[in-house]
Amino acid sequence: MRSEFDIIRQYFTRPVTRAALGVGDDAALISTTADKELVISVDTMVSGRHFYSDTAPRQLGHKALAVNLSDIAAMGAIPRWVTLALTLPKRLIEKNDTWLDEFATGFFALADSYQIELIGGDTTCGPLSISVQIIGEVEKGKALLRSGARPGDDIWISGQLGDAALALAHEQQHITLASDELIRCLTALHAPVARVELGRRLINLAHSAIDISDGLMADLTHILDCSNVSATIDIDEISCSHILRRYLPQPIAVSCLLTGGDDYELCFTAATRKQEEIENLSLQLAIPLTRIGTIRQGKGLTVMNSDGSVITLETRGYDHFRT
Amino acid sequence: MRSEFDIIRQYFTRPVTRAALGVGDDAALISTTADKELVISVDTMVSGRHFYSDTAPRQLGHKALAVNLSDIAAMGAIPRWVTLALTLPKRLIEKNDTWLDEFATGFFALADSYQIELIGGDTTCGPLSISVQIIGEVEKGKALLRSGARPGDDIWISGQLGDAALALAHEQQHITLASDELIRCLTALHAPVARVELGRRLINLAHSAIDISDGLMADLTHILDCSNVSATIDIDEISCSHILRRYLPQPIAVSCLLTGGDDYELCFTAATRKQEEIENLSLQLAIPLTRIGTIRQGKGLTVMNSDGSVITLETRGYDHFRT
Repeated sequence: MRSEFDIIRQYFTRPVTRAALGVGDDAALISTTADKELVISVDTMVSGRHFYSDTAPRQLGHKALAVNLSDIAAMGAIPRWVTLALTLPKRLIEKNDTWLDEFATGFFALADSYQIELIGGDTTCGPLSISVQIIGEVEKGKALLRSGARPGDDIWISGQLGDAALALAHEQQHITLASDELIRCLTALHAPVARVELGRRLINLAHSAIDISDGLMADLTHILDCSNVSATIDIDEISCSHILRRYLPQPIAVSCLLTGGDDYELCFTAATRKQEEIENLSLQLAIPLTRIGTIRQGKGLTVMNSDGSVITLETRGYDHFRT
Repeated sequence: MRSEFDIIRQYFTRPVTRAALGVGDDAALISTTADKELVISVDTMVSGRHFYSDTAPRQLGHKALAVNLSDIAAMGAIPRWVTLALTLPKRLIEKNDTWLDEFATGFFALADSYQIELIGGDTTCGPLSISVQIIGEVEKGKALLRSGARPGDDIWISGQLGDAALALAHEQQHITLASDELIRCLTALHAPVARVELGRRLINLAHSAIDISDGLMADLTHILDCSNVSATIDIDEISCSHILRRYLPQPIAVSCLLTGGDDYELCFTAATRKQEEIENLSLQLAIPLTRIGTIRQGKGLTVMNSDGSVITLETRGYDHFRT
């Protein structure tokens, strides 16, 4: 059995350049400049709740960081530093077990691609759980908030929604996907791509933004609540994969599209006059950006069907204690 | 059953003044000044590992924050902001359960006493686990590190060591304390006091510092390793309570004193000429500060008995994967 200190030394102690002090003291030291604010977020993934216990550790390492990157992206910030609180069952740290190797490989592959530094953490023994705290930088006063949506704004989403939820629906036997469909949807579930570059470029362009982690309806509702506005969206405008499209209009597919979590795309609002600029950005970044509706005065979220009828769903998104 | 969002709103959303943005967006926003560095640390407490599942939630709320404050104290920094990643079993969030009320009461009582702001977090469902990330501020270049100890330095500790470990030894039936002894030792275990003010005052006075969370020998060894020095300490000089003294020189009591964790006192080193200043500080803060040994060149930690013999212990401190 490897010790806590061995594990930290072997897997999680790396030189830092941007931080003044990284792993190995009571705390890490960082500094920023007067024109910047720091953006702080934390996300926990628990075995049996956010992932199956047999999920490949390399995928977990990637995803644990990706979901945090997504929060930084939604603020329009640049990710800089992370800390990692890792709770591990004893079996995963036996000397012949490769779990930690694989986890660290997935984690650092993504971290390195953004030059993010691991500056601290805590390794402890218990039921598998991964908590990542991320710190980013953004120009002072420029962060994209949930509270900035204005009546008349267009509502946009990036990428395609629902594939991650479709994979989960298959795993939970609510739907049966063909094996090639499953492979693609599992990639959406396990290897999400945070829209960091897009978030950066939306500063000065969008009025509000959020990342779609709990499902489009739940997350858009957060924007509406924080901005004291309402919205109407058109289900036909919501971009989805050709796989999900095959299963529409089955209720499970509609549900994946509107309320499925784990997409980690961005939902944002912007003035109508910004449309061309946003479409150009979509081309530049090679990321689909789609207008799905309009912000209005008042309260509530209305989802329109192609025949003009209103869609009502029982659940609006993922809630850890309700599902 | 209360929802994740209800819980965050009810217990963990509070106005912030020092942060630009607190709980309720994708991330929090903070800023600092050019003359400051930020000090970042994270600690996780897992049920069944760091505490018994029936530990009073108010004590847990206090301790989860206190152990992080202790890291900030060891750096000589001022604690400012925290995030809280809370994983809760379903039974604790039933509407009639008071666990969250009590936890939040303990947590915020301590946070408020230092004007620390909760700026974010994640609430999820699973085996009980509490991860707190703390952010402090320190004057640039002034943080107390583990790596600053110099040959000739005196080695100091604050407070009294071993009572928390003694309580744990009783709980684990390695020793039987009288009921009044147990009450006092349980207070040391459950309600540690982080030495924040002391840490602040040690800037410009100490060469190195660490908080004693894994036991004196383990934590002092971290200083020695990081500073490339050795040390000799005298067991008779280590300050302990009259309760622990009653059980000396029983091996279990010696072990609590030298290797017991959970004390959250500070161990620091300073030049001999600072002795009077440190003794004055002890009087001003009403915190016992005791010289227990000397830093020397070379490698290793030697613990001397009163008869001049050297003490050898099998374990040097708490390791989450070894015990």
